[in-house]
Amino acid sequence: MDFADLQARLQQFADERDWNRFHSPKNLAMALSVEAAELVEIFQWLTEDESRRLNDVQKGAAADEVADVLIYLARFAAMAGIDVDAAVASKLARNAVKYPVRR
Amino acid sequence: MDFADLQARLQQFADERDWNRFHSPKNLAMALSVEAAELVEIFQWLTEDESRRLNDVQKGAAADEVADVLIYLARFAAMAGIDVDAAVASKLARNAVKYPVRR
Amino acid sequence: MDFADLQARLQQFADERDWNRFHSPKNLAMALSVEAAELVEIFQWLTEDESRRLNDVQKGAAADEVADVLIYLARFAAMAGIDVDAAVASKLARNAVKYPVRR
Amino acid sequence: MDFADLQARLQQFADERDWNRFHSPKNLAMALSVEAAELVEIFQWLTEDESRRLNDVQKGAAADEVADVLIYLARFAAMAGIDVDAAVASKLARNAVKYPVRR
Repeated sequence: MDFADLQARLQQFADERDWNRFHSPKNLAMALSVEAAELVEIFQWLTEDESRRLNDVQKGAAADEVADVLIYLARFAAMAGIDVDAAVASKLARNAVKYPVRR
Repeated sequence: MDFADLQARLQQFADERDWNRFHSPKNLAMALSVEAAELVEIFQWLTEDESRRLNDVQKGAAADEVADVLIYLARFAAMAGIDVDAAVASKLARNAVKYPVRR
Repeated sequence: MDFADLQARLQQFADERDWNRFHSPKNLAMALSVEAAELVEIFQWLTEDESRRLNDVQKGAAADEVADVLIYLARFAAMAGIDVDAAVASKLARNAVKYPVRR
Repeated sequence: MDFADLQARLQQFADERDWNRFHSPKNLAMALSVEAAELVEIFQWLTEDESRRLNDVQKGAAADEVADVLIYLARFAAMAGIDVDAAVASKLARNAVKYPVRR
């Protein structure tokens, strides 16, 4: 996953289609959450066990939604001026403190 | 963004805390959508223009939620056996056909 | 809106189709959030101004999603043993305190 | 549940706080989906069985989110000009056709 390359491709995609005016961070956050819900929809009537052993059709559908979420996440971060690598590193460091390992 | 490295770190994090039993794809999809909604919450009362010029506090809050979404996305993909790079490449190729450039 | 009547009809609907085993509060909360996202999807690329003057097609689509949300909300409340009228009354009373009128 | 009365109270609440400018259907749909996600959050790490036997704390938290969803749903419908009773009746009629009872 080369995030900077993905973001450059999405910028070109938006430029060629005159989509930048739609791509406010507000709208992209909405679109991201809609794609996340489409992922949830795949699992809403499955048991947890069933969700752990997806068939190929289910896995393909989930992969599609994962891609949509990641694409909107990359686009959102670009338009909002967010450094995703730094944000993830910071969050992981805080999570390690917030959830200490019990021994 | 080294996705495989992130997924390895998340696996270790879950192992050390005995969290694997909670990390069914069903539950992780739910958690991902909750984080996506927390991103939406930042923008729900902002205008689109305001969302295009976030202050540092707002940008920091958004970065935190972006990290949470990406972490659950990586973890979901690992637990569901999804190749994220392949899924994104496939989706980008289909989007180029679905939304042709008008000249 | 006769909520008790709606809930009785939904119970009969589920009974006749053997759907009760799917209708855990966990699953119904997921389904509710998916329908809420389908409502969001209608608005994701509209401006706020456009959302204030929907055409009949848009209004019909939104009405459909409103119905889906309300149906799952009623069903969720029934299966979780929640008194919706009491919950709303309690929330309104707290909101009046939380957000005092500035004079 | 007297929906018209609830909507009248919410209108007065918004009038007194000068909130109408924030209450575009776009923004209210976002807020509704955020509250729906807060409901999902309660259940994300619970098993389905656990979600069927909530303790009083969990039930109270869920009731709060149910109220928030219903309040934003009522407000959304008012601002979008949607007749909720008609929308639900129409949807129930279509669901009865879409999901016939197997005998």
